[in-house]
Amino acid sequence: MSWGSELWDQFDNLEKHTQGGIEFVDRYSKFVKERSEIETSYAKQIRNLSKKYQPKKNSREEEENRYSSCRAFVSTLNELNDYAGQHEVISENLTANIVAELARYLQELKSERKSHFHDGRKAQQQIESSWKTLEACKRKFERDCKEAERAQQHFEKMDADINVTKADVEKARQQAQGRHQMASDSKNEYSAYLQKFNQEQNDHYYTVIPNLFQKIQEMEEKRIERVGDCMKSFADVDRQVLPIVGKCLDGMTKAAESIDAKT
Amino acid sequence: MSWGSELWDQFDNLEKHTQGGIEFVDRYSKFVKERSEIETSYAKQIRNLSKKYQPKKNSREEEENRYSSCRAFVSTLNELNDYAGQHEVISENLTANIVAELARYLQELKSERKSHFHDGRKAQQQIESSWKTLEACKRKFERDCKEAERAQQHFEKMDADINVTKADVEKARQQAQGRHQMASDSKNEYSAYLQKFNQEQNDHYYTVIPNLFQKIQEMEEKRIERVGDCMKSFADVDRQVLPIVGKCLDGMTKAAESIDAKT
Repeated sequence: MSWGSELWDQFDNLEKHTQGGIEFVDRYSKFVKERSEIETSYAKQIRNLSKKYQPKKNSREEEENRYSSCRAFVSTLNELNDYAGQHEVISENLTANIVAELARYLQELKSERKSHFHDGRKAQQQIESSWKTLEACKRKFERDCKEAERAQQHFEKMDADINVTKADVEKARQQAQGRHQMASDSKNEYSAYLQKFNQEQNDHYYTVIPNLFQKIQEMEEKRIERVGDCMKSFADVDRQVLPIVGKCLDGMTKAAESIDAKT
Repeated sequence: MSWGSELWDQFDNLEKHTQGGIEFVDRYSKFVKERSEIETSYAKQIRNLSKKYQPKKNSREEEENRYSSCRAFVSTLNELNDYAGQHEVISENLTANIVAELARYLQELKSERKSHFHDGRKAQQQIESSWKTLEACKRKFERDCKEAERAQQHFEKMDADINVTKADVEKARQQAQGRHQMASDSKNEYSAYLQKFNQEQNDHYYTVIPNLFQKIQEMEEKRIERVGDCMKSFADVDRQVLPIVGKCLDGMTKAAESIDAKT
């Protein structure tokens, strides 16, 4: 387990979750597209039916148009043609208000998601790299401490030896002093870096990552709201044509009622 | 131009007209059948769409069902399935209330029409046959008159001829008397048949044929009313599902509104 592995896991889960979100939007959009195609095909069939039964020019059927029942049939066919038109309106509005909108939005969403995870990975790599530098500082300080101790022991051994020249003792003393200075410098360096790292780690945990998570959460909330709006629109598009469909049906009823059997 | 040719023409026109009426009912019935088939096909496509996008068992999609947007999508799919069901109802009712009814009615109408024209033709042939008999009576009477006149002239010629025996004169007188009797009988026969024919002709023109035309007119009025009822039913069948379609759409809207982006 490397440093920050839990955070990495969280990132992985978020990536998976937001990818699922994108797939859901994509799947919903495909669903609406297919519904729109069904409406187009239905409208086409109804239009063809209406056309097929219209009296042909200069035919006996057209001649029969003087009978009220034949005229009522033609009215029914015309109303049915308008009825088909309403299903074309459903199809067009589903495509314009949902499918086209979601296609644009999906590009935006994918790009925003990519940017957030790019920023997240970058911040993670940055702090991990800082942590490695800190570890290196720590190891250097420990090594320098050991070197200083070893030089001190060497100096003390030389100093206690009666067969050693004063010049050699002085050399060992200066060496030990130099090593102590290096260890002290390493300690300062390590201490300074530790302070810097603590600050960086603090920023990472309490500012950078929470901000990023906040942005991803907002992106997700916006996505869910957007899907909700589309689902409302899906029903609205259909509901909007109901009064006009009702008028077509009233037109058919009126035509049927205008039939006078006595004439 | 034979006797009653104008009436024959009227019968021909009525036959053509009522045949046109039957063809109109047949054509209308086929139209409703095709509309019913379009509704079935549309409902099937919508059902398949709803099924296709239902989350698969034990899939990630099903797992995602804990999200409110996924649940709302499933609700939309379920409402859409009910929506499809309403178009199946349209299809079934069009078939049951119109197509099946008109199929039965067309058989009835064809049989009634056949029976009326059979009666009409029979009455026409009857009166035509009576008229031929009357003509034959008339010709016989005219022939008998000529014969009686010739016998009378023969008797008068014999009676005036001094070289003819009384016996021959008596024979010619009896012959002439016999011919006069025959002519008188023919006259009575013709006169009686004429009276009978006049009565028959009266019945034919003022009772039999008007009654038949009245029945055909009633048959036609009933047919037109029947078509009118079907045309009303055609719109009603569609109108009846509108409130339920509206409820399906309300269900979709409610599902969309239940989406909570915050959870």
